[in-house]
Amino acid sequence: MKSKIPSEEVAVKMNEWYKLIRAFEADKAEALKREIQYELEDMEENQDLLLYFSLMEFRHRIMLDKLKPMKDGDCQPPFSEMLTEIEMNQQKLTGLLEYYFYYFRGMYEFKQKNFISAISHYKRAEEKLEYVEDDIEKAEFLYKISEVYYHIKQTFFSMNYAGQALDIYKKYELYGMRRVQCKFIIAGNLMDAQQHEKALEYLECALEHAERLDDHYMIAAAYYNIGHCMYSLGDFCKAAEDFERAAAGFEAHSFQQVIQAVFSLTHIYFKTERYSDAAASYARGMKSAAEWEDEIYMTKFRLIKELYQGDGGQDSLKEYFDILESKELLADTEELLQDAAHFFHKRENYKAASYFFSRLVGVQKRLQMNNYA
Amino acid sequence: MKSKIPSEEVAVKMNEWYKLIRAFEADKAEALKREIQYELEDMEENQDLLLYFSLMEFRHRIMLDKLKPMKDGDCQPPFSEMLTEIEMNQQKLTGLLEYYFYYFRGMYEFKQKNFISAISHYKRAEEKLEYVEDDIEKAEFLYKISEVYYHIKQTFFSMNYAGQALDIYKKYELYGMRRVQCKFIIAGNLMDAQQHEKALEYLECALEHAERLDDHYMIAAAYYNIGHCMYSLGDFCKAAEDFERAAAGFEAHSFQQVIQAVFSLTHIYFKTERYSDAAASYARGMKSAAEWEDEIYMTKFRLIKELYQGDGGQDSLKEYFDILESKELLADTEELLQDAAHFFHKRENYKAASYFFSRLVGVQKRLQMNNYA
Repeated sequence: MKSKIPSEEVAVKMNEWYKLIRAFEADKAEALKREIQYELEDMEENQDLLLYFSLMEFRHRIMLDKLKPMKDGDCQPPFSEMLTEIEMNQQKLTGLLEYYFYYFRGMYEFKQKNFISAISHYKRAEEKLEYVEDDIEKAEFLYKISEVYYHIKQTFFSMNYAGQALDIYKKYELYGMRRVQCKFIIAGNLMDAQQHEKALEYLECALEHAERLDDHYMIAAAYYNIGHCMYSLGDFCKAAEDFERAAAGFEAHSFQQVIQAVFSLTHIYFKTERYSDAAASYARGMKSAAEWEDEIYMTKFRLIKELYQGDGGQDSLKEYFDILESKELLADTEELLQDAAHFFHKRENYKAASYFFSRLVGVQKRLQMNNYA
Repeated sequence: MKSKIPSEEVAVKMNEWYKLIRAFEADKAEALKREIQYELEDMEENQDLLLYFSLMEFRHRIMLDKLKPMKDGDCQPPFSEMLTEIEMNQQKLTGLLEYYFYYFRGMYEFKQKNFISAISHYKRAEEKLEYVEDDIEKAEFLYKISEVYYHIKQTFFSMNYAGQALDIYKKYELYGMRRVQCKFIIAGNLMDAQQHEKALEYLECALEHAERLDDHYMIAAAYYNIGHCMYSLGDFCKAAEDFERAAAGFEAHSFQQVIQAVFSLTHIYFKTERYSDAAASYARGMKSAAEWEDEIYMTKFRLIKELYQGDGGQDSLKEYFDILESKELLADTEELLQDAAHFFHKRENYKAASYFFSRLVGVQKRLQMNNYA
């Protein structure tokens, strides 16, 4: 199966196309347009980019119209004047094209991990957001930006944008799903800031909303997130219930996320020494992971089993950590290293505890570094 | 000695004053103005706020002029019309007042640790930045914002704003100091992102610039920062040289920062087992700390001495950590806990290592939390 062309790559070419149009490079613009058209057919789905294409096509035609007299040999004002005239007349189109230009450039820079440059371009796109007339489209921009900032731990900015998006979605009954997602992002940021009680308020509100929408995926996801909050707050019993609900929900509708919910459940059973529950849950999780061919989760399952029920030797444990770390799953590795270190510390095996703690500090540094290009 | 009134408090009142003026509440506005005028005399220095005051005074007078006919009993258009007319005629003044309004509100929210709200207000101030005609004033805004975001670890945003400010300062020969400071901020962010080589480039450039400016404080500060970079890169020998230069520079011009430079120097001497250097440096640092009555640094000096030259018992060590933690010096505590944990780990005292590591994890959580209101 041929893999789809990533939309970022097409977007870069669209931005090039825009530059050629504004420079009145008719032949080159035409050639690039054909190339883009060809690639669009094989591109992964991206509605925004298709809209950008149609706007650009229209702008391209305006350029060609302007150029026509030249072909008749008539006198022709310089390109710079033509550009000014077109852009004055087509102020709204120009504004929209620039909005998309900066937005897609931001996405591209983000993907390249040039985060400072990505922020610059997002900010410029935001300045042009006034040309986007549709409220929902504005909210979509703010929502996507909040997601992006969440991933690079710009916590307060992410919350700010998710809050702005939420304020818009609240006005539109139809956009219940996005409201739930905004609340998930805000809660995720609050958990990063160790504000679990506040995160819980958002998550419970999200759960209630997801239930009203009767959206199976979102309901299960809400339970999963609430479970993590409860876990962090130390209420393992409630956390286990939430993870069980999440697992059941994902399972009933064949979502792959069942694996991670069962993993969290198994983890908590081990932690609270409910070994027979843990064994059953382990089998259930390994079965799911095998069905979805999820090698990573199989490693994670083996790791926690070895930690909580192994012979106390650490060789296989270290190997499992090596696998996770080599696959750059640093956040997972960090969480489990912390768990392993505390496990041995509690059991007064200080040598092992100290080993895992010092490995933890190393992974934390790599995590901070990893955020950077 | 009476302590100065914090400028944030006066700024909040100025914003209230602005609201009263726009609502044509002449008497209340007049009363509040007098109150503010009185407080300004006792306020800590803040040039921007004084400028805001003069602009507002001018705006106040315009309101009073508008209101005059009413006192003669003439017919009077409604306030909303008067407001629109004034603000249309005084577009630039209105823009500037709004810039200051949002800027100071942002500073106030920041101080209250309402970071999400602070970001909203800074963004609104930035939208009005076009009314600030002076390039340098714009750069000052961008610089201050970058500082603020640095403190709450919004790393990429801080770098983005510091970069923008730097681009402006570069055009003005006179603003060499600010250029050095911008580079310090960028380097600080890069160190937070574990990008020490890149940070070093900025710092070496900053040092060279500070030397050209012949600014003693900045030269010493540059060496101090370079020392930390070198320390993180593992070049302890070079780091010691840099800290020594920083200490000498601060000392020669009686800057209090000599204490922290000597502390870093002493720390590195202990770490590299240069005990006689460490002893001399310890005495020098304790002397400075005593002169400046700096209890905190005295505790930090005692702590590292106990760690590296104590009898191996951990009771006093733990007490010193308790003191630092109780004073909410979490970043310092984190750094030294890490050091203590690694110290014991290396000497195979795993019980102590594990204790300090697990205490470290707790402090890290408090640090993440502390960023939040």
